[in-house]
Amino acid sequence: VGTRVTLLTDFGTADGYAAAMRGVLATLAPAAIVEDASHAIEPGDVRAAAWALGRYWSGYPEGTIHIVVVDPGVGGDRRGLAVECGGRFGVGPDNGVLTPILSDTRSRTVSIENREYMLQPVSSTFHGRDVFAPAAAHLARGVPLEALGPAVEDPIRLASAGPAREGDVVSGVVMHVDRFGNLITNVGASVAEGAVEVIVEALPVGPVRTTYSAVARGERLALVGSSGLLEIAVRDGSAAATLGAGRGARVIVKTARNA
Amino acid sequence: VGTRVTLLTDFGTADGYAAAMRGVLATLAPAAIVEDASHAIEPGDVRAAAWALGRYWSGYPEGTIHIVVVDPGVGGDRRGLAVECGGRFGVGPDNGVLTPILSDTRSRTVSIENREYMLQPVSSTFHGRDVFAPAAAHLARGVPLEALGPAVEDPIRLASAGPAREGDVVSGVVMHVDRFGNLITNVGASVAEGAVEVIVEALPVGPVRTTYSAVARGERLALVGSSGLLEIAVRDGSAAATLGAGRGARVIVKTARNA
Amino acid sequence: VGTRVTLLTDFGTADGYAAAMRGVLATLAPAAIVEDASHAIEPGDVRAAAWALGRYWSGYPEGTIHIVVVDPGVGGDRRGLAVECGGRFGVGPDNGVLTPILSDTRSRTVSIENREYMLQPVSSTFHGRDVFAPAAAHLARGVPLEALGPAVEDPIRLASAGPAREGDVVSGVVMHVDRFGNLITNVGASVAEGAVEVIVEALPVGPVRTTYSAVARGERLALVGSSGLLEIAVRDGSAAATLGAGRGARVIVKTARNA
Repeated sequence: VGTRVTLLTDFGTADGYAAAMRGVLATLAPAAIVEDASHAIEPGDVRAAAWALGRYWSGYPEGTIHIVVVDPGVGGDRRGLAVECGGRFGVGPDNGVLTPILSDTRSRTVSIENREYMLQPVSSTFHGRDVFAPAAAHLARGVPLEALGPAVEDPIRLASAGPAREGDVVSGVVMHVDRFGNLITNVGASVAEGAVEVIVEALPVGPVRTTYSAVARGERLALVGSSGLLEIAVRDGSAAATLGAGRGARVIVKTARNA
Repeated sequence: VGTRVTLLTDFGTADGYAAAMRGVLATLAPAAIVEDASHAIEPGDVRAAAWALGRYWSGYPEGTIHIVVVDPGVGGDRRGLAVECGGRFGVGPDNGVLTPILSDTRSRTVSIENREYMLQPVSSTFHGRDVFAPAAAHLARGVPLEALGPAVEDPIRLASAGPAREGDVVSGVVMHVDRFGNLITNVGASVAEGAVEVIVEALPVGPVRTTYSAVARGERLALVGSSGLLEIAVRDGSAAATLGAGRGARVIVKTARNA
Repeated sequence: VGTRVTLLTDFGTADGYAAAMRGVLATLAPAAIVEDASHAIEPGDVRAAAWALGRYWSGYPEGTIHIVVVDPGVGGDRRGLAVECGGRFGVGPDNGVLTPILSDTRSRTVSIENREYMLQPVSSTFHGRDVFAPAAAHLARGVPLEALGPAVEDPIRLASAGPAREGDVVSGVVMHVDRFGNLITNVGASVAEGAVEVIVEALPVGPVRTTYSAVARGERLALVGSSGLLEIAVRDGSAAATLGAGRGARVIVKTARNA
């Protein structure tokens, strides 16, 4: 079975850019198995790409190479990175998209600078095709990480402040809104499980439940989602629409710790 | 050549949920060939998912495993199902999404209950990752259907009343609207081929034609579509938009049977 | 490693039509590796499909078979084509979608007429499933191009007038608008590199730059894009929205040739 390579971009598919990357991979690493994670990231939304990557990168088997290209700074002086962590790899621009891998203390990172492993000439607008797909293809063929370029000690990681506690009250924030309109927060399961009341932008959501079916259709609820984080949902509806809240919305969790 | 596994969900791709399922499959069944049928089903639209599944499940070779996850009841008490029919498999929630396979009289169905074949712990919101992808992976590796759990004799199937005949008039309904705005009905080819006039919600569409080019651009027409069912179309346009009709719209077919 | 087959359609994915094509390929050519280029072409937009195909067809390795199905004339008298060029293949309707391959002088083309290589019966609305996927599958299995049908000397190619020069002024046109709102023109790099001023529909865009970061965020710029053509962009924004311009917009390039 070949090495797996996944693709995450903001390219859409209709312009043929994603297929151009696949063509490079098929040419340079014909035995690799290429899978689309998504090409539907909103243009330039580095934070959304990093969020999505965090959902799947470590669930793939060792050897997998995850390409992430959301790259508004393409052609400028931002670096291109390749990172290895626990036998899995990430390849993409140095703008934070690789944060979930880079944040793992075991990771080691290089700057992709060896032009031997790029398509020539390198365009100034499409490093997905000319730099990142070739780098991933060479990694898939067994080229060692270090051959791509020099070690990097200061890759850009997206800041993500954890929630703050003051007495029985934990203050967090909505980090991501998914397709279902679920509001996913930065409040972890351990806090959530002790919550007696959750409030989003001054709107009460009630206590933390274990499943959607704990409330009636159309009702809002809080629960620990599949990422181990507190989520705000509306059963068979959209919490984002119902509560008028999005990324960055403030979340208050009242806990019973000292009650 | 490995076993094929197809994915049909309402997850979209941008949140990384579909990729998380692929990661599980890649880990547990690395030799399987995973293909996206779609992740673009409207959130919670069980009927649309069942429709789509009906278009492709039996056209794949024997051994193929079709995962379908449109699952508004996740985490509640609905069962998870695995079904085998003619050497092909379906895996998904017991809410009707698997209807095209379950409706085949040859099918045999089990309730997925053996926790050995699930990821641990099973989340309450993402059985696609924790239950259905693992079940499919184990089927792909040769685990027998019966090992997943006990037989089920009463899986939920979506009701689909056939058309009604009264003399020369057959009354049907629009079952699906596709991306082109075609209105696909529950009236079969044998009835359609005898039609002298088709009417959708009181709007005349004319007789049944053999191809789009039988009418001028922008004109409406009726024809037997690729599923062997009567469809209402507008040449180079959208019948749904032109006729203001959607799923559930009433269709009258006047036949010449006794004329 | 199996032969690669790519799919480009205007089907979307949610109706199961694309998966139906994949099922045919999996059945008839199980060793082929099937990749989605896109199913997101706007319904009936032959020109957009040809554009996308131009971005990737030749970047895939020899042996690859590119299926393109944007086919408003399905069921009428338009021919179905298979074309070979430099060891790569194209399969699709004779309406211009295959233009990038057909325009290569090395290409040889046949009309798909041998019913042995079609699904029976052939529907009048879904040749992607019944004609083109089977033709591609048979090519993937080694059936020679000529076995599919007779040679065609006059396949339909989309007309694309090159830019016109009058003294120091080159007049071109926007050929494609991509997901980022970039306006991609028919003006080549050699002209663009001598430009002192670019004007789109009477709005000045400035000289040709080498990269997005040459201007401030939100500013418009001209540069040579990844296809070797002059593009108009807005840094971190959409040129299409900012300039109110789309496909067919007029582009004036003032060059310094004789200055």
